[in-house]
Amino acid sequence: MTLLDTINSPQDLRKLDRKQLHQLADEIRHRIIEVVSKIGGHFGGNLGIVELTLALHYVFDTPRDQVVFDTGHQTYPHKLITGRRDTFDTIRMHGGISGFCKREESEYDVFNAGHASTSISAALGIAVARDIKHDDYRVVAIIGDGALSGGLALEGLNQAGHLKRKLMIILNDNDMSISTNVGAMSGYLNGIIKGQAYNQAKDLARGIMDRIPLVGGKIHGMASDMEQLFKHMIVPGTLFEELGFKYLGPYDGHDLDFLIDLFEKNKDYNGPLLVHVITKKGKGYVPAENRPIWSHGVSPFDIDSGDVVKSTKPSPPSYTAVFAEALIELAKRDPKIVGITAAMPDGTGMDKFAKAFPDRAFDVGIAEEHAVTFCGGMATQGMKPIAAIYSTFLQRAFDQVFHDVAIMDLPVVFALDRGGIAGADGPTHHGIYDMAYLRIFPNMVCMAPKDENELRHMLKTSFETGHPTSLRYPRGNGFGVTMDAELQSLPIGKGEVMRDGNAGAIFAIGNEVWPAMQAAEILAKEGIEIAVINARFIKPLDDELIAKYCRPFAKIITVEEGSLAGGFGAAIMERVQQLGIRDVAFHRIGIPDEYVHHGAQDVLRAQYDLDANGIAKRVREFVGGAFESDDLSPEMKALIANGATAGEIAEFLTRDIPAAEWRHRNAEGHDSDHIDEVVYGMKRRAAK
Amino acid sequence: MTLLDTINSPQDLRKLDRKQLHQLADEIRHRIIEVVSKIGGHFGGNLGIVELTLALHYVFDTPRDQVVFDTGHQTYPHKLITGRRDTFDTIRMHGGISGFCKREESEYDVFNAGHASTSISAALGIAVARDIKHDDYRVVAIIGDGALSGGLALEGLNQAGHLKRKLMIILNDNDMSISTNVGAMSGYLNGIIKGQAYNQAKDLARGIMDRIPLVGGKIHGMASDMEQLFKHMIVPGTLFEELGFKYLGPYDGHDLDFLIDLFEKNKDYNGPLLVHVITKKGKGYVPAENRPIWSHGVSPFDIDSGDVVKSTKPSPPSYTAVFAEALIELAKRDPKIVGITAAMPDGTGMDKFAKAFPDRAFDVGIAEEHAVTFCGGMATQGMKPIAAIYSTFLQRAFDQVFHDVAIMDLPVVFALDRGGIAGADGPTHHGIYDMAYLRIFPNMVCMAPKDENELRHMLKTSFETGHPTSLRYPRGNGFGVTMDAELQSLPIGKGEVMRDGNAGAIFAIGNEVWPAMQAAEILAKEGIEIAVINARFIKPLDDELIAKYCRPFAKIITVEEGSLAGGFGAAIMERVQQLGIRDVAFHRIGIPDEYVHHGAQDVLRAQYDLDANGIAKRVREFVGGAFESDDLSPEMKALIANGATAGEIAEFLTRDIPAAEWRHRNAEGHDSDHIDEVVYGMKRRAAK
Repeated sequence: MTLLDTINSPQDLRKLDRKQLHQLADEIRHRIIEVVSKIGGHFGGNLGIVELTLALHYVFDTPRDQVVFDTGHQTYPHKLITGRRDTFDTIRMHGGISGFCKREESEYDVFNAGHASTSISAALGIAVARDIKHDDYRVVAIIGDGALSGGLALEGLNQAGHLKRKLMIILNDNDMSISTNVGAMSGYLNGIIKGQAYNQAKDLARGIMDRIPLVGGKIHGMASDMEQLFKHMIVPGTLFEELGFKYLGPYDGHDLDFLIDLFEKNKDYNGPLLVHVITKKGKGYVPAENRPIWSHGVSPFDIDSGDVVKSTKPSPPSYTAVFAEALIELAKRDPKIVGITAAMPDGTGMDKFAKAFPDRAFDVGIAEEHAVTFCGGMATQGMKPIAAIYSTFLQRAFDQVFHDVAIMDLPVVFALDRGGIAGADGPTHHGIYDMAYLRIFPNMVCMAPKDENELRHMLKTSFETGHPTSLRYPRGNGFGVTMDAELQSLPIGKGEVMRDGNAGAIFAIGNEVWPAMQAAEILAKEGIEIAVINARFIKPLDDELIAKYCRPFAKIITVEEGSLAGGFGAAIMERVQQLGIRDVAFHRIGIPDEYVHHGAQDVLRAQYDLDANGIAKRVREFVGGAFESDDLSPEMKALIANGATAGEIAEFLTRDIPAAEWRHRNAEGHDSDHIDEVVYGMKRRAAK
Repeated sequence: MTLLDTINSPQDLRKLDRKQLHQLADEIRHRIIEVVSKIGGHFGGNLGIVELTLALHYVFDTPRDQVVFDTGHQTYPHKLITGRRDTFDTIRMHGGISGFCKREESEYDVFNAGHASTSISAALGIAVARDIKHDDYRVVAIIGDGALSGGLALEGLNQAGHLKRKLMIILNDNDMSISTNVGAMSGYLNGIIKGQAYNQAKDLARGIMDRIPLVGGKIHGMASDMEQLFKHMIVPGTLFEELGFKYLGPYDGHDLDFLIDLFEKNKDYNGPLLVHVITKKGKGYVPAENRPIWSHGVSPFDIDSGDVVKSTKPSPPSYTAVFAEALIELAKRDPKIVGITAAMPDGTGMDKFAKAFPDRAFDVGIAEEHAVTFCGGMATQGMKPIAAIYSTFLQRAFDQVFHDVAIMDLPVVFALDRGGIAGADGPTHHGIYDMAYLRIFPNMVCMAPKDENELRHMLKTSFETGHPTSLRYPRGNGFGVTMDAELQSLPIGKGEVMRDGNAGAIFAIGNEVWPAMQAAEILAKEGIEIAVINARFIKPLDDELIAKYCRPFAKIITVEEGSLAGGFGAAIMERVQQLGIRDVAFHRIGIPDEYVHHGAQDVLRAQYDLDANGIAKRVREFVGGAFESDDLSPEMKALIANGATAGEIAEFLTRDIPAAEWRHRNAEGHDSDHIDEVVYGMKRRAAK
C-alpha cells in the first residue's frame, strides 16, 4: 500500500505531515511515468508540476477554494489526488478520464481547458463572482510562461491588475511552452531568471552610489543618472508590478516545503498577486529532463532509456511530414513563401521548414491572432505566407481571418493540421468546425485532400489561388498511397469523379473520400452501385459536378469529418438550392450537434459512421430499393438494366432542361427558379 | 483657394514650409468639422490626429514608406491629403468613400481596418516582408491607447519586441478609447502622463540619496532599499523597454514642429521604437473637447453649439435603449445578473446598466476574448453574466464562446447589438455572420426578436435557458410597436405563426419578420396568400412548425439579415433534410457571398431584397403560379378554392404519412428515410 493509495481527496492529503508529502511526490511521479510510458500522454509538464500541485492542495481549501489550471494537460498530479487515482490508467482513452481538466469529471476541476491562456480571465471572473456574492473563498490561477504570450492571458492580466480583486496567479515558468518559447515576454522572464540584467543594474547602481560621497556637489545631477539607470535595468517583476500586481519570485517550483510556506503566508493577500515559480519539464525523470520538447506529449516509451516504443510494422508517412516536405520543395522554388506557426513547430512540421529556411520561418508563440494578422501584413508586400495552425486553434483567429485577410482578399494560406477528429485530446482539440466557419467568408478558397499525395498537389495549388486559402488535413498517418513524382496544380473548384454508379452519389471531402470508396466497393458486392465524388473543395464547389449528379430524384450522400451544422454537406445542399435544382434527396454523414469525446480516431470515426462500414450502412439504408420501384417507366428500367450511371439516369430524367439552367444565374445569391415548370413536368414523366 | 485645395497627394504636402503646415492643419480641422457636422461620422479622434498625420506624411516617404493606421476611423485627415479631398463629403455614404482605411481606395491605405488592435501585427508582417526582400522602406504603425489593451495588439507587441526589426510604433494616447479607458495598461499610461508615480519615485530616490552621505556605513544596505525603490516606481516606458522597445515620450501630439523634428531624427532608428504621443480628442473644436465620448461618432450637429440636430419627427426607441431598460428591470429582480461590455458601454446600453448597478457592471476595454472567458468564469459560480458585444466584435471571441462557454454548457448570455447590416461603417462592422458561426456549437441557444417588444421577452428568456444563449438584434430604432406591460418568458425553440396562406410560407428571423409580413400583405392584394412564420430561434429550430409547413411540394422562403452561407435559411434546410422531409422547394433571401459595402441601412437592405418590396418581389417570382397548374387534382383545386392554408394543403398532400414520421428520429443526426415510399406515392397522387 503506497501513500498515494490512501489519498482519495485533498482532505486526505492535508492529514499528511511534510515528510510524507515528499514521499507522495515521488509516488506520483512514479505513477505518471509508469502509466504514460505504457499508454502515452502529456508528460514533461506533469512531472514538472508535482510539488506545485501538492503545495496548492495542501494549503488551499479545495474544492471550496477555486484552483484554475491553464490549458489543463498538466493536471495529472491533480487528477491523482482528486479521486481519479484508480481510473488514472484510462487517461485519454475512449471511455476513460480526460487528459485535461473537465468539470463533468470532478468538482476539483474548476474550468475546462485544452486551449491555452484562459486561466487568468476565468479566475478573475470567479473572483468577481465571489465578491458580488460577498463570499470569501480564494481563487488561484496557474498559467505557464508559454500561455502568458497569448492575447487572452494578457487581456486578463490587464483587467486583473485594474480590478484589484483578491486573486493569486501562479506563473509556472519552465521557459518552454510546447516548443521553445519566443517573444519579448519570454525574454523578459528569462532575464528575471538569469538575473543577469538585474545584477548588471545592481552593479550600475552601486557605481552611482559609490560616486556620491566622493562628489557631493553632483547630487542634483543624480536624478538624470537615476533615470538612465531605471530605464535600463530589469528588476524582477517590474512589468507585472506596473500592471497592478504584487510580484513574488522567482522561486524554485520544486522546493515543496518552501512553496507550502509561501502559499501559507500569502494565501490571503488581498489583491492581485503574481507568484513566479521556476519548474523543470520532465523533473525527476532524466530522459525527459534532457529532451523537454520530446516530453510534451509522448507515445509509449521504455522507462529505462526513454526511447519511444516503435511499432514493428512500417506505417505510411504522417500528413504533417508530407506537408513539411512538400512545403520545403515549394519554398525552394519560390522565395516568397514564408512559414508561420504559433507555438506548434513540431506538430505542424514547421520545425523542418524552419531548419531549411531559418530566415523565412516564424514561430510567434501561443498567439494565433497575431500569427494571422502578421501573415496579412506580409501578404500586402507580395509575400506568400502560410500559417500552419491546428484547425481547432485557428478558431482563436476567426476574426483575424475575416478582418485582416479575407476582406482584403489577401493570398494567405492556412494549413490546418488536425482537421477532423483529433483523437485522445478530446473535444477542445477536434478540428470539427473549420469547414463551417471558414467557408462563410467571401473570397475564401477552402480545400481538403483525399490523401497525403493529394495534399502535396493542394499545397502547391493553395499558393496559386490568389485568394485566402485554407487546406485542412487530418492528424495521423496517410493512406500509404503512391506519391506522384511532381507536384501538380489542381483546377480551382473542381472535384474528381472517383467512380460512377446508378444508385446515387456520395460527395465526400478530404480523408473521407477513400472510406467512401471502400464503402462503395462493399455496396457494389451487394448490387448497389454508388458513384463517389472527391469534392476536393469546400469552396468554391464544383457546379458542373453538382449539376451532373444532383438532379431531381437523385440520392446524394455527403460525407465529412466535420460538423454537419454549416459544414460541407450543408454547403452542397445550399448550392443545389441556389442552382434551382429541386427534389434532390440528401443524406449527410458527419459530426452531429454534440461534442465529440476523446478516444482513438478510428473508434470515434466508427462511432459516427465515418469509416467504410459506417458509410456503407448509411448509404444502404438511404438508397436501398430506390430504383427498384415498379413505378419506373420502361425507358428508365431499360436504362438501369443497361448499367447506366447516376449521371446518365439524371440526364435522362431532366433531358428537356438545358444544362445552363442548372447553373447559378448570377453571383448575387438569387435562385434560378424559372425551371419550375420544367421540373414539374419532368416529375410526372419520371413517375409514369 | 485654400492650401488644402492644392494638396493632391503627400508629395504636394512636402513642398510646403512649416508655417504653411500650421495653416493646413487649421484648414483640415475646418473641413472635418464642416463635413461631419452635416453628415455625421467619426469626429473627435480625427480632430485629435491632424498634426500627427501631417507630420508623418511630411517626414515619411509615403506611399513607399508604409504607414499602418489602427482601427482606421481616425483617418479623415489622412484621406484629405491622399487624394480624397474632393470626395470627402461622401464619406460613409452609399457609393462614397469609406470611413475607414481601404486598400481598394488608395495606395496610401496600407491595411484595411475597422476592428481595433491590428496595426502592430500587420506592420510587423510588413517589416519582416521588407527584410526578406532586402528592401529598405520604413514601416510605421499608429495605435490608440484603447486598442493597445486588445490581446492581438499585445501579442504583436510581444513579437515585435522580440524580432527587433526596424519598426516605429506610435502610441496615440488620448486616454480614451471609445469610452473611458479601463485596465491596468491604461492606468500605467496615465501614470506616465500624470508623472505622479514617476515624481514620487524620484522624490523617494532623493530621500535615499540624501541619507547616504549622512549614514555612510549603511551603504551595503542600500541595495535592498534600491530594490524596493525600483519595484515601486514608474519610469516612463519601462514596460515597453522591458518588452524590447526603445521608448520615446510622452510628447505633445499637437506640437507639429516638434513632431516633425522627432520623426526626422528617429525615422531610421534600426529597431522597434515606441513613440508615445498625447493627443486630445476633439482638439480645436471646443464642444468636442468638452464631450470626448459624444465626439467619437456623431450625428449631424450645429457647429456653433455642438448640439446634435434633432429630428423633428418622433422616432421609436432604439433596440439598444430597449435592451438596457429591460436588462435593468430584470437585474432589479435577479441579483445574479452581471453585465459585461468590451469598450462599448454607450453603444450597447451598458452605460445605463452600469449606472443602475455599478458593482455588477464591467467594462473590460477592447478585449472581447477576455470578456467572454471572464463571463465563463462567473457562470461557474452561479452568476448570470450577459456580455453585450456587437455582433461583428464577438467574432474576436469565437474560440472563447466555444472553449470557455459552450463546451462547458455555461449559461452565459451574448447580447449582440448591431446584428445584420450596420450601415455606414461598412464591411468590418456589419453583423452578418453571427447566425452562421454561433449555431454550429453544441449547447448554444440562438435567438433574434422580431421587434423591440419581443427583444424584452427574449432577454428575459435568455436568462432562463440554462445554456449559452445568443440574442441578436439590429442597429437602430425599433418598429414602434406597442410594448407589453410585463416581460414574458418565451418557449425555447418555438416559433410563431404570424399569418397563414396557401401559396407557401416565409420563415423569417429577427427584424425581417415585419418586412416579411408587409411583403405578404402586398402579395395578398395580388391574390397570393403566403404564410409568415416568426422563427424566433435560429437554434433550436421549431420542428413542429417545420413539419407543418415544410411538406413535400411546399414552397418555403427564408429571410434573414445575415449570411446565406451557413445561416438561418441553411439551418432550416439542414433540419428539413434531417427530419427526412423530401421535395421541399426552398428560396433563401439574405446576404450572398460578398462583402456588403457601407451605406444607409435601408439602402443596403433594399439592395439585397431585405425590405418588404424586395421580399415580395422574390416571393412572387418563386411561388408565382405554383398552384395554378392545370395538373392539380380536383380535390386539390377544391381545397385551394376554399382558401385552404399552406399547412392544410401540405396536410392533404401528405395525409397518409403519420405526423411522427416527420420528426427527427434521434439526436444523432441520422435521417428518417423510411418514408420514401410514401412520399413517392404521394407525389404521383398530387400530380394527377
